[in-house]
Amino acid sequence: MTDTAENQRNQRHAARMARKKAIIDASIARADQKKGLLLVLTGNGKGKSSSAFGMVGRSLGHGMKVGVCQFLKSRTDTGEEAFFSRDPNVAWHVLGDGFTWETQNREQDIATSLRGWAVAQHMLADASYDLVVLDELTYLLNYGYLDADQVLDTLAARPPMQHVVVTGRAASEALRDLADTVSEIADVKHAYREGITAQPGIDL
Amino acid sequence: MTDTAENQRNQRHAARMARKKAIIDASIARADQKKGLLLVLTGNGKGKSSSAFGMVGRSLGHGMKVGVCQFLKSRTDTGEEAFFSRDPNVAWHVLGDGFTWETQNREQDIATSLRGWAVAQHMLADASYDLVVLDELTYLLNYGYLDADQVLDTLAARPPMQHVVVTGRAASEALRDLADTVSEIADVKHAYREGITAQPGIDL
Repeated sequence: MTDTAENQRNQRHAARMARKKAIIDASIARADQKKGLLLVLTGNGKGKSSSAFGMVGRSLGHGMKVGVCQFLKSRTDTGEEAFFSRDPNVAWHVLGDGFTWETQNREQDIATSLRGWAVAQHMLADASYDLVVLDELTYLLNYGYLDADQVLDTLAARPPMQHVVVTGRAASEALRDLADTVSEIADVKHAYREGITAQPGIDL
Repeated sequence: MTDTAENQRNQRHAARMARKKAIIDASIARADQKKGLLLVLTGNGKGKSSSAFGMVGRSLGHGMKVGVCQFLKSRTDTGEEAFFSRDPNVAWHVLGDGFTWETQNREQDIATSLRGWAVAQHMLADASYDLVVLDELTYLLNYGYLDADQVLDTLAARPPMQHVVVTGRAASEALRDLADTVSEIADVKHAYREGITAQPGIDL
């Protein structure tokens, strides 16, 4: 390209970006409200819990108070718990017994779910928690281990500035309806299917 | 339900879960390899960068060394940087000038991109980094600010056990092909469209 052609390209770029900035600035000006959000991260792809934990980090960086309920996980040797639990502003609860196919005991799973939900209810009634993560909650709802209506009512009645992140596959329509933000993470490709095991830092 | 019906339900559940466990255990046994993964988090939905930062937390929890390059962001007051930078095992670089529509200057954007990429190249050649996050890299590729072939070659030639997470909308086919894991995050619903501004802890 000649210098003149390159200059023209740069000028066209600048004009296009000035128009784009005007549109985006107007859109940002319209979005001026603050409230506690309910975010749902669902779908079969990798990144649901990781994303919730990223928001935990962001919140702790702002000095906010965070509660985390991991409803399925039974192991307490994960990187996420080791790292985030160092911060005194986080209350981290590993509340599971493992997946349903590990316990193979429906009554035990229901009892475990109810115990875990009691911990979450406590946080969802306490406005001092700025962010509450309910990791893998959808499974407890989809298996019918918890009463979905009661869970949704509790979410709806939480303190108005409290953010909640719910993760897990197959979020119900009712949960999506209640949510402010819903991301559906599609599994386009996963290393696991190529014979790669779950690895520290990435998966645990 | 009578006690007997409930018992039968529990027994059927246990049998179904025992079969499921056998299938899953066999699948886990087949996935026994370890390697440095290239993960791509793309799509228009919320959760791409958050997910990368969740993996940063997981990795730091395991005592791994982490490098983060934020290619677009120019602000250094985010929760993520404040929080994760506390850990001595993380090298956090905010390398951007803001979005292209903020600078409105293509030559400046290209120069900024090249400076940022030099930082990333250094990490991608250093096996002491267990995880490297290239946050919002796709925009630099899609705008043509970086040479995509050179970036892909550098990613392919990195240390074999090093994990890399690339985030950003519209990841190219070539980048997806090179990746081990690709998650496409769909924007089903976003609070921003309901007039809610970006909020600390959730978005910044």
